[in-house]
Amino acid sequence: MLNYSRLKSTSLNKMKSNYANRGLGLECDINLANEYYRINDIAYVYKKPTPIKLVDVDYKSGKIKEAYFQTPSTTDYNGIYKGKYIDFEAKETKSKTAFSLSNIHEHQIKHLINVKKHGGVSFIIVRFTALNETYFLSTDNLEQFIKNYERKSIPLNFFKQYGKIIKTKYNPRIDYLEVINTLYFGGNYHDEKKN
Amino acid sequence: MLNYSRLKSTSLNKMKSNYANRGLGLECDINLANEYYRINDIAYVYKKPTPIKLVDVDYKSGKIKEAYFQTPSTTDYNGIYKGKYIDFEAKETKSKTAFSLSNIHEHQIKHLINVKKHGGVSFIIVRFTALNETYFLSTDNLEQFIKNYERKSIPLNFFKQYGKIIKTKYNPRIDYLEVINTLYFGGNYHDEKKN
Repeated sequence: MLNYSRLKSTSLNKMKSNYANRGLGLECDINLANEYYRINDIAYVYKKPTPIKLVDVDYKSGKIKEAYFQTPSTTDYNGIYKGKYIDFEAKETKSKTAFSLSNIHEHQIKHLINVKKHGGVSFIIVRFTALNETYFLSTDNLEQFIKNYERKSIPLNFFKQYGKIIKTKYNPRIDYLEVINTLYFGGNYHDEKKN
Repeated sequence: MLNYSRLKSTSLNKMKSNYANRGLGLECDINLANEYYRINDIAYVYKKPTPIKLVDVDYKSGKIKEAYFQTPSTTDYNGIYKGKYIDFEAKETKSKTAFSLSNIHEHQIKHLINVKKHGGVSFIIVRFTALNETYFLSTDNLEQFIKNYERKSIPLNFFKQYGKIIKTKYNPRIDYLEVINTLYFGGNYHDEKKN
């Protein structure tokens, strides 16, 4: 007989572990970078809160007693840099060879394409945790991959060829605006800070 | 003796009622306008989810069992229109004569100013529900009021003089982009839709 209680417990642990590892290292680095950008008046980029469906709220104490996570309608991060609208999604993968597209919802990819079409800067940031390498991939390149390949995951080599590596620095730990600056503004923002 | 239980119950009803009336009419109109803009590929503006502090989550069922509302770090709405970063806060007031600034957190006003400084279009939308009038007020004008007046609330006349009224239409019910178009792009977006 199948040990159902053991199965449930394993599944529970897996979910806990999935949740705990759900890109918190990268998320943390990006939040710190955004804080650095704000403090230095370079850019205003924020992580959107996770959407939650409220079921039971005690309005007296302000306590939410029952609620559920919802699928986000858009990407996790957006904001403004040098007058440009910035929009991106960030994900970690444990794989050493490829990033599975199942990590990004289809409507999120559609959103990134819409932003690009309307003149914004949109992209994904993907960290290969086992290699400790973090890549910037523009929506143009992401679209190019989806159109030209039938594979459901983007090989590391595609990131190496078409993406840009985001170097790990002291502060901010991942300076993704440096890449945006090279690609879209042709310069180093540290030398040309605006008022 | 003070009837404590009655007091508590009244207070609870008041909170419930406050919550229920917390600008849902205006919020609903803006959400519908944003949906209209997205469907017609005019602009991509979304309401940010309310930030919530999780205390107790059952990862097995995905049920949030204890959580609390947090103060948002930024404004409620942002997105992209004609390549421009758009950022605003929307509030309703029952007053017929003035809008109290206590409705907007100080860090939200600071955020609107930062967005403006960095080349974005930032503003507030205020609805006087008793008058059924909805106003657009740019961050420039909001700053002007805060700098020049010691009052803690903006009189309706200030909105009439410096703001723009947002007309109620059939669809979208409040077409706030029409105002942005007049103020920042000098035209009517219906005639010049981009690809």
